[in-house]
Amino acid sequence: MDENRASTALDELITALPDGTVVTDPDIVAAYRQDRAADPNAGTALAVVRPRSTEEVQTTLRWASTHRIAVIPRGMGTGLSGGATALDGAIVLSTEKMRDITVDPRTRTAVAQPGLLNAEVKKAAAEHGLWYPPDPSSFEICSIGGNIATNAGGLCCVKYGVTTDYVLGLQVVLADGTAVRLGGPRLKDVAGLSLTKLFVGSEGTLGVITEVTLKLLPAQHSACTVVATFGSVADAANAVVAITSRIRPSMLEFMDAAAINAVEDKLRMGLDRTAAAMILAASDERGPAGAQDAEFMVDVLNSHGAKEVFSTTDPDEGEAFVAARRYAIPAVEAKGSLLLEDVGVPLPQLAELVSGIEAIAAERDLLISVIAHAGDGNTHPLIVYDPADADMTARAHRAFGEIMELAVRLGGTITGEHGVGRLKRPWLASQLGPEAMELNRRIKQALDPLGILNPGAAI
Amino acid sequence: MDENRASTALDELITALPDGTVVTDPDIVAAYRQDRAADPNAGTALAVVRPRSTEEVQTTLRWASTHRIAVIPRGMGTGLSGGATALDGAIVLSTEKMRDITVDPRTRTAVAQPGLLNAEVKKAAAEHGLWYPPDPSSFEICSIGGNIATNAGGLCCVKYGVTTDYVLGLQVVLADGTAVRLGGPRLKDVAGLSLTKLFVGSEGTLGVITEVTLKLLPAQHSACTVVATFGSVADAANAVVAITSRIRPSMLEFMDAAAINAVEDKLRMGLDRTAAAMILAASDERGPAGAQDAEFMVDVLNSHGAKEVFSTTDPDEGEAFVAARRYAIPAVEAKGSLLLEDVGVPLPQLAELVSGIEAIAAERDLLISVIAHAGDGNTHPLIVYDPADADMTARAHRAFGEIMELAVRLGGTITGEHGVGRLKRPWLASQLGPEAMELNRRIKQALDPLGILNPGAAI
Ligand SMILES: Cc1cc2nc3c(=O)[nH]c(=O)nc-3n(C[C@H](O)[C@H](O)[C@H](O)COP(=O)(O)OP(=O)(O)OC[C@H]3O[C@@H](n4cnc5c(N)ncnc54)[C@H](O)[C@@H]3O)c2cc1C
Ligand SMILES: Cc1cc2nc3c(=O)[nH]c(=O)nc-3n(C[C@H](O)[C@H](O)[C@H](O)COP(=O)(O)OP(=O)(O)OC[C@H]3O[C@@H](n4cnc5c(N)ncnc54)[C@H](O)[C@@H]3O)c2cc1C
Repeated sequence: MDENRASTALDELITALPDGTVVTDPDIVAAYRQDRAADPNAGTALAVVRPRSTEEVQTTLRWASTHRIAVIPRGMGTGLSGGATALDGAIVLSTEKMRDITVDPRTRTAVAQPGLLNAEVKKAAAEHGLWYPPDPSSFEICSIGGNIATNAGGLCCVKYGVTTDYVLGLQVVLADGTAVRLGGPRLKDVAGLSLTKLFVGSEGTLGVITEVTLKLLPAQHSACTVVATFGSVADAANAVVAITSRIRPSMLEFMDAAAINAVEDKLRMGLDRTAAAMILAASDERGPAGAQDAEFMVDVLNSHGAKEVFSTTDPDEGEAFVAARRYAIPAVEAKGSLLLEDVGVPLPQLAELVSGIEAIAAERDLLISVIAHAGDGNTHPLIVYDPADADMTARAHRAFGEIMELAVRLGGTITGEHGVGRLKRPWLASQLGPEAMELNRRIKQALDPLGILNPGAAI
Repeated sequence: MDENRASTALDELITALPDGTVVTDPDIVAAYRQDRAADPNAGTALAVVRPRSTEEVQTTLRWASTHRIAVIPRGMGTGLSGGATALDGAIVLSTEKMRDITVDPRTRTAVAQPGLLNAEVKKAAAEHGLWYPPDPSSFEICSIGGNIATNAGGLCCVKYGVTTDYVLGLQVVLADGTAVRLGGPRLKDVAGLSLTKLFVGSEGTLGVITEVTLKLLPAQHSACTVVATFGSVADAANAVVAITSRIRPSMLEFMDAAAINAVEDKLRMGLDRTAAAMILAASDERGPAGAQDAEFMVDVLNSHGAKEVFSTTDPDEGEAFVAARRYAIPAVEAKGSLLLEDVGVPLPQLAELVSGIEAIAAERDLLISVIAHAGDGNTHPLIVYDPADADMTARAHRAFGEIMELAVRLGGTITGEHGVGRLKRPWLASQLGPEAMELNRRIKQALDPLGILNPGAAI
């Protein structure tokens, strides 16, 4: 569409929505070009629309359909796969002004607008003695709508599952502006197809999520935490399998030598710089059962050749280790720019995945630090590079693809929790195969025939 | 299609599949006309096809697409909503010969063919010290494929969730014969749309499930069981809300006076025949936590006016009460034929739902016994009638619809776990609304454009 027509169209939208909803100030619009994937090829949107209600989202999408203008749904832009990267001529629909929440302690549910932060949902639940489990490391800066659109994971998934396990209902606005209610505050409901679940993880390609009904749990019990260091990555990975095949830890995380050292550089908490790997585990089972689990994990870690094993029931001490693990990404980022991977494998292949990544790092002459939600086989290889060094940048991008190819070869996935976005789309078919790709396309086509919703992302 | 053309087409299929796979013996075909909904309007299929592999299912569906012959997928035919009712001129595709299973204790997963019984899946898992939680009361006679196609529930859902929470991957054969693999033995995987979850609960309308990858848990801990009787249904219902708003019981079931008496008639276990309601609860938390939960539930039940509360840690004694609850349906069935309802409501509406059902029973002059998976607001009103009595039968069918309308009015669902099938289809739109209905139709149309998969069922 040429500039004149676009600007006339935009005037229509500005008039149709309350004052201030549509933002065209170039500086502000520029701030919405990228998400945390920082795609250098990001475009510039015509405008940023910041609706306050489902109705305003409907108005926006009806208008976008009429004018065939692409819409990029956006939460807080913390995504790591370019799912919210702006396109030239598109509009960015940001949910940041949609921030209501009501908690119903009798049904242990919450109804929230999408723009609320994950941390704010947790806090609202906690005020009623309740708990919203999903805990991406970005929980203080990412939106609940973005979490649902990406089916976000986190540290507690190994026991408590991922975002989809807590979504009972949604209101979504389809490409043509129709608002649809799916599911609701019912713990069991099989009327019609499982469409609520279809929208979870759809990365803004099927509709805009404007309201969510979440299942909450009673407050979590305090955890026993176990930390172990290993001289060998394979030993650590094998210990992980030995633990999860027998018990359900509430956390089971992994850091390699590079991550341990990067964190120690910053936090100086006395981590063993000579270790090849560190395992951080916890059990939140109540009463003596938590301590029993911790004891079991200590035994398994020792019998798998741990150098040192440390166990604590002190919540602050436990939390310090969790904070160290959460800090690993920023700590490694201090060494250079990051390409942040998210590949996963079936657990028995974890050791092979990590050693394969080591081989890629050696071959491409790069630092690749691996941290992992080890208990569910989901790793985050952090590829460090200097964007000013063109050759290194090219090698980093090579390694990025090679790691995904390795994961697929090991029966794994190119993305465990961050989503496909725009960054990983070239590799999606190699994992799904042509039949599943075609099925994805048919659903997309059925729900967004004009292709205006987040074009180029995910599918 | 006329009879000659149908019989020529059938010859083609008989030739294409191994000997004995296609059955046309009229007595056998007649045995596949109905499921447990016993729809009197069931048709008679052309043939029953009993494939042994995904490839044979593909051959069947390719053939069905070519000849535009409807296919009714069928597991063990224990469905209660007519989802597997045969149609004239269709074929019934029974999965009963697809019975392999492999358990991988390292990943705590199982890969099973769809025809295996739920009880057989549980048993195979138990041989490795593992547990497949979903436990429909029919677990000894229903197939795992049927469970997935209906997203079956059961007694442990209140803590452990429903079937979809345990499905990591599927192989499905689409209407045109394409076989597609979705998901797999990865605990976290967000590559592409959540299609695995879309197929769970799709009641045979989107594809035939030919293989399933299931998540297993470590063996369940033994439970503390609490039983309470009440003089008032409302008190019992309120106690349920008070319990689940604070803790996560592993079971929380309800029986009304008619169910208590029907069970007592048969089992003579000393149940209180004068009680208006009975609550059966359990906690499987480990160690003293289980007893603490039991104590908490005893307190709540007492403070909500229970007549009598009984608590036991003896597994056999606990199991006897569970068996009594499971026996409620056959026990009430001894009083006449049953229309078995499956409505659910948000928990705070449970008391109003049950009293509303009492009013419908009085108005229609019928015995309607209510049993419920109370902890998740899912009730099974059992409408007793005599099919030889035309007037009574008409009143029973009226009540059947009125109960669904009541549930929808209370913000509930027409089906919590049994599925829409053919029986409940007329009420689906009143729950979902036109927008969600249209969304269901679009997905169906995208995946089965010829409409050959289970026509007339679910959507
Ligand atoms: C330091 C750091 C740590 C992280 N740790 C984790 C982690 O542990 N686990 C994890 O899963 N992720 C993690 N992430 C990634 C990111 O935080 C998650 O993907 C998060 O769910 C994105 O939320 P957001 O609000 O920022 O969404 P955005 O980045 O704005 O958008 C993400 C995607 O969702 C779509 N979207 C957003 N809102 C809506 C809506 N209302 N309707 C429809 N589509 C919508 C967008 O189009 C886009 O495709 C991390 C990120 C950072 C920066
Ligand atoms: C006494 C009794 C108690 C029950 N208790 C419960 C309970 O507690 N909870 C509960 O949820 N249900 C319960 N049910 C209902 C029933 O057992 C469940 O719905 C069960 O999941 C059906 O399994 P099935 O193998 O018998 O499937 P069927 O009845 O054969 O089919 C059910 C539906 O699934 C489809 N289907 C079956 N297999 C496949 C496949 N491989 N691919 C695609 N579609 C397929 C069919 O087309 C049909 O729509 C009970 C039934 C009885 C008789």
